[in-house]
Amino acid sequence: MIDLNADLGEGFGRWELTHDEALLSVVSSANVACGFHAGDPSTMRRVCAWAAERGVAIGAQVAYRDLAGFGRRPMEVPEDELADEVAYQIGALRVFAESAGARVAYVKPHGALYNRAVHDEGQARAVVSGVLLAGGELPVLGLPGSLLLGAAEEAGLSAVPEAFADRGYTALGTLVPRREPGAVIHEPDAVVSQALGIALRGSVTTGDGVEVAAGARSLCVHGDTPGAVALARRVRRALAEAGVRIEAFAP
Amino acid sequence: MIDLNADLGEGFGRWELTHDEALLSVVSSANVACGFHAGDPSTMRRVCAWAAERGVAIGAQVAYRDLAGFGRRPMEVPEDELADEVAYQIGALRVFAESAGARVAYVKPHGALYNRAVHDEGQARAVVSGVLLAGGELPVLGLPGSLLLGAAEEAGLSAVPEAFADRGYTALGTLVPRREPGAVIHEPDAVVSQALGIALRGSVTTGDGVEVAAGARSLCVHGDTPGAVALARRVRRALAEAGVRIEAFAP
Amino acid sequence: MIDLNADLGEGFGRWELTHDEALLSVVSSANVACGFHAGDPSTMRRVCAWAAERGVAIGAQVAYRDLAGFGRRPMEVPEDELADEVAYQIGALRVFAESAGARVAYVKPHGALYNRAVHDEGQARAVVSGVLLAGGELPVLGLPGSLLLGAAEEAGLSAVPEAFADRGYTALGTLVPRREPGAVIHEPDAVVSQALGIALRGSVTTGDGVEVAAGARSLCVHGDTPGAVALARRVRRALAEAGVRIEAFAP
Amino acid sequence: MIDLNADLGEGFGRWELTHDEALLSVVSSANVACGFHAGDPSTMRRVCAWAAERGVAIGAQVAYRDLAGFGRRPMEVPEDELADEVAYQIGALRVFAESAGARVAYVKPHGALYNRAVHDEGQARAVVSGVLLAGGELPVLGLPGSLLLGAAEEAGLSAVPEAFADRGYTALGTLVPRREPGAVIHEPDAVVSQALGIALRGSVTTGDGVEVAAGARSLCVHGDTPGAVALARRVRRALAEAGVRIEAFAP
Repeated sequence: MIDLNADLGEGFGRWELTHDEALLSVVSSANVACGFHAGDPSTMRRVCAWAAERGVAIGAQVAYRDLAGFGRRPMEVPEDELADEVAYQIGALRVFAESAGARVAYVKPHGALYNRAVHDEGQARAVVSGVLLAGGELPVLGLPGSLLLGAAEEAGLSAVPEAFADRGYTALGTLVPRREPGAVIHEPDAVVSQALGIALRGSVTTGDGVEVAAGARSLCVHGDTPGAVALARRVRRALAEAGVRIEAFAP
Repeated sequence: MIDLNADLGEGFGRWELTHDEALLSVVSSANVACGFHAGDPSTMRRVCAWAAERGVAIGAQVAYRDLAGFGRRPMEVPEDELADEVAYQIGALRVFAESAGARVAYVKPHGALYNRAVHDEGQARAVVSGVLLAGGELPVLGLPGSLLLGAAEEAGLSAVPEAFADRGYTALGTLVPRREPGAVIHEPDAVVSQALGIALRGSVTTGDGVEVAAGARSLCVHGDTPGAVALARRVRRALAEAGVRIEAFAP
Repeated sequence: MIDLNADLGEGFGRWELTHDEALLSVVSSANVACGFHAGDPSTMRRVCAWAAERGVAIGAQVAYRDLAGFGRRPMEVPEDELADEVAYQIGALRVFAESAGARVAYVKPHGALYNRAVHDEGQARAVVSGVLLAGGELPVLGLPGSLLLGAAEEAGLSAVPEAFADRGYTALGTLVPRREPGAVIHEPDAVVSQALGIALRGSVTTGDGVEVAAGARSLCVHGDTPGAVALARRVRRALAEAGVRIEAFAP
Repeated sequence: MIDLNADLGEGFGRWELTHDEALLSVVSSANVACGFHAGDPSTMRRVCAWAAERGVAIGAQVAYRDLAGFGRRPMEVPEDELADEVAYQIGALRVFAESAGARVAYVKPHGALYNRAVHDEGQARAVVSGVLLAGGELPVLGLPGSLLLGAAEEAGLSAVPEAFADRGYTALGTLVPRREPGAVIHEPDAVVSQALGIALRGSVTTGDGVEVAAGARSLCVHGDTPGAVALARRVRRALAEAGVRIEAFAP
């Protein structure tokens, strides 16, 4: 059993990015943008309605307030301020999840906030404070071994590790940094094979052929190009054929 | 018995405007800015906490998305889009009301949205749709006779009329437009006297000395200058001395 | 001789919209978004550089400050404020035009501002005030018969009328409103034929077969879909084959 | 001879912060906010007009794009993107300086960008690239010894060091960090005395009584409270009485 999650609703007003409706037939969990890096209210409403119809779990994809940089520019936001910004985003999304008869079921930080919360204790703690402020004891989805998941656990929240079918791993089980060769796996067969490894054996094979542990309750797939959607579909099918049940971790 | 409401939390980041803490000792209902015309998440959290401590009712002061114009520039937003924007703001505020142990108890549009929703059916209906989308059947606070209150009633929501202690009224019982002389009453004694008239007799005296009906369940006071705060305090004291109970319409 | 103009640079950060590089091989004038409805600084720099390389004239596509609504939501901005906002956008674009060895050669309002400046005297006058404030006596591109072009002429600026190859015209020579049938011409041959009529005879044929005057110094083409780019190319080729020279009105 | 500079125009729309008109009678150089951390177009126009009337030099106070954080939250913006953002701000301000018959005479980064450009080579270089992109070989005002001033000099720009009358200095001649005691000098007499030391002897006395070099061509004063304005006036008067000429470095 594994969960498939994807970033969705990442358009803004006139601009579209993610193939929301197509992806919602593939994933079991939708990380919905909440307006700070992407995601206008109407898109949020629409994505929540589609997710609810399909029984896909809705997560708040919280981010730094940075539309111009798509939330990818690292920022140093004072902890209490960041906690409040995280809570604000969760609250805004809740309206649309609940009006669709569903609920916000978890939280996943986006872009630079995701990355900073791996190593930076203050920013990690602030995200968790924001989740607590929002109430409902929401699970937090993040990188295995990250300070974010550590802080979530410490706060009594469920900390859910995710793995990536299309990212290279080092012999230490960490992701190959984006600027280094082998960071992203482009070959579809390799992506499918890595997805199966994660789901069936809890491990991936590095570029050097070493098998390292990469267990995860959720597998992140992408949907910002038509090709990515097709690949996500292939991953899902391969998992199903291998007898892996696709199921949200927070239904 | 009457309610006193004021616009609060109308700073943004480094900028402050309303005297939030002082006003919260005067009013029974706080119209809290939700981030679209003013109001950052940390200010929202602080104002909600202070309001909850004092038993002041928290309302969502929803607005057009226009920080640069402070929500005062009339806009023509497509109805479904506007409804979604209204719901987004209510949801965001809810997080802070609820984390303070309180709740969002009503909705009041701000500035250009307030004014447009008096006469424009589409914008009025959109605000009400947004309130419905947000759930909880929240009362709507607005101008007596406005299309907004009409639309709210039609939708089965409680429609709460408000009156103004410091605005001139015409012989028809409507407000003197802001560009005309007599629009704003500056003389403190006159403001206090008009407040008493509204609360005790449900009427105000126009500039020409005519008494017209101006019944209201809530009285709007201002708090964006130290003088305004002092005047609001005087109004409250005068009402109390006249035996009027100050009580929120949506406690 | 005629000018071909298109809206360009209408992405924002991560989001792309217009096919900028492809279109710049087709048009003689580029209406570059300046950051208020679309257009981040890096996109502005890139589009200006590409335009300068190809000898395409650079125009400031000024708009209401409304990223969420893509500048399409009508607003009522106080005249002096709007003039300042228009000037700000022109100034910002100038840096990138000039660093590319070119200059901002004209101004064209976008979306709701374009439409409001057709009929609303105050908003039309404000755009012209902004152009004057920015200095350089820039020509203004707009709808024939609009108050905008009238105000531009009155201020001593060059007022340049444009026509549309893909919009239906009424018997009065005005555009068929967007909600009515026949507003947009989808059939490529009809678009090409209308472009030729405008360039060669200064007239278009209405849906009822009436020929009405539609003279214009510039022809607006679109480029927000791959199909639109291909069609713009066909229009250019047809004009060239008919002996029409494509030339910017403000080189 | 010394220059007095202050941050001005740091309101936004409805919100005011700096006492612009009062300060413009005190300083010789105005660092005008350009819209990214503060400063709407109308405020920019007004401040430029007032500055031009009084012969005060106009500088572009460029910042990270962060209205909610007032440009005080450190960001990591890709270099070319940051350069473009800096150029955009300079261009926008130019329109208002030039329409007032003046010009943008220099550039000073604000808040977190100022601080990051002290130690971070990439961000420092990006600011200088932005200044070069904007053309006109504008002088750069910054902290003595900062990477920013180094990068400016390397690029052939004039690098102008500034000193602070109200900040404590360490024995190394650097500023006492803001979280440490003695970071800010509150006692007016001490501020005046430090200003005189900088202007007359090119040195300041540390908290431990050590005299260290603090030569500067410009002295930064503040104007965001009425008290700050009064103190800035006292500093100016004391300098004049000591025979120091107040003169812009880039008139």
